[in-house]
Amino acid sequence: MVHQHDESTANEVNTNAQLPSYEPSQEPHVYKVGRPPQKNLAKELADTLRETFFHDNPLHRYKDQSGSSKFMMVLQFLFPIFEWGRSYSLSKFKGDLIAGLTIASLCIPQDIGYSKLANLDAQYGLYSSFVPPLIYAAMGSSKDIAIGPVAVVSLLIGSLLQNEVDPVKNKEEYVRLAFTATFFAGITQAALGFLRLGFLIEFLSHAAIVGFMGGAAITIALQQLKLVLGIRSFTKKTDIVSVMRSVWSSAHHGWNWQTIVIGMAFLAFLLFAKYIGKKNRKFFWVPAIAPIISVILATLFVYITHAEKQGVQIVNHIKKGVNPSSVDKIYFTGPFVAKGFKIGVICGMIGLTEAVAIGRTFAALKDYQLDGNKEMVALGTMNIAGSMTSCYIATGSFSRSAVNFMAGCQTPVSNIVMSTVVLLTLLVITPLFKYTPNAILGSIIISAVISLVDYEAAILIWKVDKMDFIACMGAFFGVVFASVEIGLLIAVSISFAKILLQVTRPRTVLLGNLPGTTIYRNTDQYPEARHVPGLIIVRVDSAIYFSNSNYVRERILRWLTEEEERAKAEGESKINFLIIEMSPVIDIDTSGIHSLEDLYKNLQKRDIQLILANPGSIVIEKLLSSNLTEHIGSNNIFLTVSDAVCFCTSKTMQEP
Amino acid sequence: MVHQHDESTANEVNTNAQLPSYEPSQEPHVYKVGRPPQKNLAKELADTLRETFFHDNPLHRYKDQSGSSKFMMVLQFLFPIFEWGRSYSLSKFKGDLIAGLTIASLCIPQDIGYSKLANLDAQYGLYSSFVPPLIYAAMGSSKDIAIGPVAVVSLLIGSLLQNEVDPVKNKEEYVRLAFTATFFAGITQAALGFLRLGFLIEFLSHAAIVGFMGGAAITIALQQLKLVLGIRSFTKKTDIVSVMRSVWSSAHHGWNWQTIVIGMAFLAFLLFAKYIGKKNRKFFWVPAIAPIISVILATLFVYITHAEKQGVQIVNHIKKGVNPSSVDKIYFTGPFVAKGFKIGVICGMIGLTEAVAIGRTFAALKDYQLDGNKEMVALGTMNIAGSMTSCYIATGSFSRSAVNFMAGCQTPVSNIVMSTVVLLTLLVITPLFKYTPNAILGSIIISAVISLVDYEAAILIWKVDKMDFIACMGAFFGVVFASVEIGLLIAVSISFAKILLQVTRPRTVLLGNLPGTTIYRNTDQYPEARHVPGLIIVRVDSAIYFSNSNYVRERILRWLTEEEERAKAEGESKINFLIIEMSPVIDIDTSGIHSLEDLYKNLQKRDIQLILANPGSIVIEKLLSSNLTEHIGSNNIFLTVSDAVCFCTSKTMQEP
Repeated sequence: MVHQHDESTANEVNTNAQLPSYEPSQEPHVYKVGRPPQKNLAKELADTLRETFFHDNPLHRYKDQSGSSKFMMVLQFLFPIFEWGRSYSLSKFKGDLIAGLTIASLCIPQDIGYSKLANLDAQYGLYSSFVPPLIYAAMGSSKDIAIGPVAVVSLLIGSLLQNEVDPVKNKEEYVRLAFTATFFAGITQAALGFLRLGFLIEFLSHAAIVGFMGGAAITIALQQLKLVLGIRSFTKKTDIVSVMRSVWSSAHHGWNWQTIVIGMAFLAFLLFAKYIGKKNRKFFWVPAIAPIISVILATLFVYITHAEKQGVQIVNHIKKGVNPSSVDKIYFTGPFVAKGFKIGVICGMIGLTEAVAIGRTFAALKDYQLDGNKEMVALGTMNIAGSMTSCYIATGSFSRSAVNFMAGCQTPVSNIVMSTVVLLTLLVITPLFKYTPNAILGSIIISAVISLVDYEAAILIWKVDKMDFIACMGAFFGVVFASVEIGLLIAVSISFAKILLQVTRPRTVLLGNLPGTTIYRNTDQYPEARHVPGLIIVRVDSAIYFSNSNYVRERILRWLTEEEERAKAEGESKINFLIIEMSPVIDIDTSGIHSLEDLYKNLQKRDIQLILANPGSIVIEKLLSSNLTEHIGSNNIFLTVSDAVCFCTSKTMQEP
Repeated sequence: MVHQHDESTANEVNTNAQLPSYEPSQEPHVYKVGRPPQKNLAKELADTLRETFFHDNPLHRYKDQSGSSKFMMVLQFLFPIFEWGRSYSLSKFKGDLIAGLTIASLCIPQDIGYSKLANLDAQYGLYSSFVPPLIYAAMGSSKDIAIGPVAVVSLLIGSLLQNEVDPVKNKEEYVRLAFTATFFAGITQAALGFLRLGFLIEFLSHAAIVGFMGGAAITIALQQLKLVLGIRSFTKKTDIVSVMRSVWSSAHHGWNWQTIVIGMAFLAFLLFAKYIGKKNRKFFWVPAIAPIISVILATLFVYITHAEKQGVQIVNHIKKGVNPSSVDKIYFTGPFVAKGFKIGVICGMIGLTEAVAIGRTFAALKDYQLDGNKEMVALGTMNIAGSMTSCYIATGSFSRSAVNFMAGCQTPVSNIVMSTVVLLTLLVITPLFKYTPNAILGSIIISAVISLVDYEAAILIWKVDKMDFIACMGAFFGVVFASVEIGLLIAVSISFAKILLQVTRPRTVLLGNLPGTTIYRNTDQYPEARHVPGLIIVRVDSAIYFSNSNYVRERILRWLTEEEERAKAEGESKINFLIIEMSPVIDIDTSGIHSLEDLYKNLQKRDIQLILANPGSIVIEKLLSSNLTEHIGSNNIFLTVSDAVCFCTSKTMQEP
């Protein structure tokens, strides 16, 4: 069949070139560049604000609802448990129970290890896997996320806190500052969500996160060498150089071969388990329960052989009992408030980024929507409550959430199951961890974080966007060679630099005609595109703002000069028209208007006619209100490039 | 006549719908979305860097030149005086002489006044009108700019310096810090130019500058009340509230009626002169020489009547003689270096913004190009030299440059003339200023800065861009009610916020078909545009970056839901296709790719086919390298929306 369709806004439309659906006898159409219906200022502002803060239109579901059901919906909105709770069934519970037990077995050893990363006693890690999950289960809207302490945030808060207070000398102060930081982290998260500023975390680009996570994983793994090699005196720094130095320096006397044997043996076991899990999805539970098994085995081994007498470091005492209150320990006055606030904000943001990323991933897999801002409120509340019950910052854990998902969790109940198990652990079996060798914790953490080094993602980033790759590597090396904070700083600043570069140096391309059509396309992308003699068509690929208006003007003039030289060289006719394809110019501000005006004047001096093609609604609005259209002449503004070209060619024909 | 032109990429092109220029017997054409020729990484980076730093292609003129002429050109590039100097003529000198004398008569009283704004002795103002103009004349490329101290920068440096050092108690230190700041301002300016980072000043938007200048003008005028009312004890603060308070508080005892009479009388005279100048361009010289005349008259008057005995404050002693060296006064060590650096950077940037803006304006009027980065090097060098010859920051002055232009200056020689006159003043006639009443200086400054309040520009900004207007007003009120620094801070941060908002919340619009054509346009802008049943066409008006990728995905899905609801309500057929018009999507990064992938998966679940129309070169490049094209299916990517629509409609016809 023959497709006939033409882009035409000329005074008369050739009726042979219509969609089949139209009658040949149809009336001709005339289209000028449309001016959208006037909005008043209030409406305009309202729209901007709505798109900025309420783009997901959260109230949409509340319209035409009765008062009582409105209340119920609000309640369900704040506490989704009331939503899914009503349709909760035994079958669902089976899934949640299995999943909950699995992640519990995974989280207990991890918690003990991670609390070491944060320079805190083991019990604080377990505390943080008890209270926060319960609160999240009531308020959170993600079905799959597993809440608790995570490696990266533990490392981050640990290294930030020990810059302020010595975790060994002033233990009490350190712990109090940790709670303070956790409190403010919660406040930050809840505030961001409540003020619907959730989009702020978007400014940490995917690439930057990949790099940061990878670097953090390496750093964490390096920190574990202390435990796995049984080194007693270890550096406080986290950068690879000083860690390696202190590892070597302690090589000849500091290492403990029994520890190394235990550590390495179980590390091999854990990695093998991981491998099996990867190999066959059916065996996902193998890597999930491997840690707890190895803990049990190792503990028994040490208990029997009394290896601790050979200098194998063991966990020793873990405080028994449920979370004590810590409200009185949070600093609300004094110099530590500011420090706690700073640390809290940073850790809170990172925690958010991780949790929201996880939430989005699994929501996409199970195809349900997730309200980022609502999630933040939930996470915030959970950390505020945590800070008052001796917990440090908890968030969504990549590894455990994945296990949770694969173990077939149905609702946040799996989190409740997990925290119940953790509670029992705290009440009953903590003493059993006495003989657990630290080495085993080290190997567990190593095997856990290793998968955060996502080299495949890095390769893809390299393939797709070099600039992103720079950000990624910057973050990675920043973390590995300097420190977590510096890595983070690099990541954020490169991300911003990219945005600013985009708005400072937009692309401008030369358009040419695709022979046999009236389509005008980028001559780089379409080498067959022929340029029309006597005129030059430039497309500006960005909003024209103060940050780029001068560049755009100068760049367009440079295109013109280059084309004129070319035309002269090839003995073509003089260039009389400069057509700017405005389709991608989504907005223009006063600076942009000024530079267009300058451009117009400049072209007049060379007697070249400036012509605009297809300015968008906002742009035409502003051109009109600044009376620039009168300068340029509204009959020099066309709906399409082809119209403009036709106009020019006909004009040149008229004036030989 | 009948225009026939169509946009068609179907397998067969209807030959009736061709541009007249094509033969009817022409071969049919097939166009797919083009993939640009592969660039290697190095080239890609090189291009980006070139566009960022050398977009004006400065070396263009040097290619195919002999060595010697190359050297000459470089010399001329650094010192344009060698360029215009060779073609300098007597007739040109006549113009420059008149212009030079005019601006000299204008600058001498202004300099004395402005140095008071900077809390410096009168002679420093005159010094700064002697050395810097000479250096600029040799290195600068603007023909019309008049160099010297300016009101706003004087106020800025004054208020910044007195935050650090008390100008009365530690006078010596204050002056030294002023030179240090000037030195670093010069370094900053030269460095920005040399590193071709000139575009950084673009981040201060036009609107922000208008607001800042207006606010500064008001603040300066208020400061002059001290002189015009003859108040002895005056606040150090610059905000309107505290100034007004100290004016009223001193009303009953502090004012001096003789001073007020002189001040007001001459202010009236000056404003009248200004009015005449505005009224008739021929009399531009009236406001230009009015200040010096009023100085002479006022001085004589005081000298004769001995009004100083009635408490009329007079300039008293101005140090006679040419600039002393101040190399040894600049702080290169100690705590003041950092302070000087900070102040220098701020003032340097503001000075640049002002000078470059002026340069551009007059360059546009006389139609010659100005290399921003080169200008910065010139201004920087001039301030570095200035800081070593007892000058404080000089830059281009709005008022004097305008006079210079109108007086018919031809080359920077007018600046040389001016500085010569200033030199003579310093050597000979400074003692004559002894009896000049401070009030007259106040009135001169008021009449000078009053024109910086550009309410017309503000109105235009309001008309064109509300967001810009907010930035403008923010800067204005920030300066007037808080302080110059805060106003500046507000201006910059609002400008940045705007950029970030743009890249966080891009516009997405619904496209419809203009009946009788195959043009698809924004349905808001073109109410007549009809939407095609069974499909939805969305245009994304921005690059898809990490900062907006999630928003874009969610927003598109929201469009879909809304359209589906509408379709259901109107009993239309189900939506089977979602076409994304990609023309304005100039770039996409890894996050963008991911969210497109998520979108695709999400649509698949609703069995809706995702279709892309006209992705640009960079985008298609990245889609290919990330294998997303394979997911979507490369036959679902079309050159134009109309092609895509044709494809969809034909498909729906096939499957009833």
